[in-house]
Amino acid sequence: MQTISKQSGVGFILKQGEYLKVSGPKGQQVSDMVLFNKNDKREKISSGKTLDFEESILISKDNFLWSNRSNKMMKIIEDTNGRNDFLLAPCSPETFKIMYNKEDYHPSCFENLYTNLAKFDIEPDEIPTAFNIFMNVQFEKNGKIIVDPPFNTPEDYVLFEAKMDLIVGLTACSAEDSNGGSFKEIQYEIFKELP
Amino acid sequence: MQTISKQSGVGFILKQGEYLKVSGPKGQQVSDMVLFNKNDKREKISSGKTLDFEESILISKDNFLWSNRSNKMMKIIEDTNGRNDFLLAPCSPETFKIMYNKEDYHPSCFENLYTNLAKFDIEPDEIPTAFNIFMNVQFEKNGKIIVDPPFNTPEDYVLFEAKMDLIVGLTACSAEDSNGGSFKEIQYEIFKELP
Repeated sequence: MQTISKQSGVGFILKQGEYLKVSGPKGQQVSDMVLFNKNDKREKISSGKTLDFEESILISKDNFLWSNRSNKMMKIIEDTNGRNDFLLAPCSPETFKIMYNKEDYHPSCFENLYTNLAKFDIEPDEIPTAFNIFMNVQFEKNGKIIVDPPFNTPEDYVLFEAKMDLIVGLTACSAEDSNGGSFKEIQYEIFKELP
Repeated sequence: MQTISKQSGVGFILKQGEYLKVSGPKGQQVSDMVLFNKNDKREKISSGKTLDFEESILISKDNFLWSNRSNKMMKIIEDTNGRNDFLLAPCSPETFKIMYNKEDYHPSCFENLYTNLAKFDIEPDEIPTAFNIFMNVQFEKNGKIIVDPPFNTPEDYVLFEAKMDLIVGLTACSAEDSNGGSFKEIQYEIFKELP
């Protein structure tokens, strides 16, 4: 079991057929995840393709995460919490300037993704919209989006199966509103076989 | 006034401060649009950033279209129809195989975008989720997505103002379900000043 410190991130390889389990040991904490094909980084996770093929804004157990080339990258095997977001881009320095009116330095998922993926020669501009595990984005019929606190407990987890060899970027999210106002760790574990 | 033939596309430059007006001369026709910074193609339109900063799934009059670098690319000055989609990726050859069960060749927005943007050295893998003008994507509280026929009339149009020098890719969409079952032309016009 690996721990991602609050407001930080990691980058690692997940091989086809392996499983990734993501949890928040204190609960109420979002984790942004991006995926790249290990063998060709131009192929990466796509919100637009996933929402289209899965015919849903809400992506959970039994859904697949699809790439920009229309290939399956992951399957969600289990999701005990049941709420994730795939609408909103990772929080970035500009998020805090534009939406929070904070001019000073602020950690962000965007920075934590690109700095931890730099070792795989992935550049900031290549970071796509992330799959935001546990993120509780509510939406109304008129389209209005509200970011509510996540409701994952320490027992909740999401279990993914890799459908190709992947480069994974994973964070403990840095945005106040997305995490109930305080920042906690994220834990993850890789399994060779279904745990 | 330029015409985009049914199931085809175009690529062109739109300079900062210019206006782009998009309409369907027969109505009931979707047009997919992608945007790149003319001076640095690594900057491009981002659904995730736009939905985040505009705090809405539905993007219409007075909203901005944002880039992956958190810059404003366009402002929507007028939208007489009032329904566009920014959730779903452009239809691609795989869309017709996976969702329509059609194995034969089928024109697609994806192909029509990358072939018409090749002259700007934009590669297929660089095509982002498009802003789908007139596309009528309904969604339910449980997240379920339904693609309904567009309801734009021949009089309806969307008027955009460029906030930076842009490369624009624009199509007359090729997907049956998105266009009420038949394919029509799209028209567009560029103005130096507010028409």
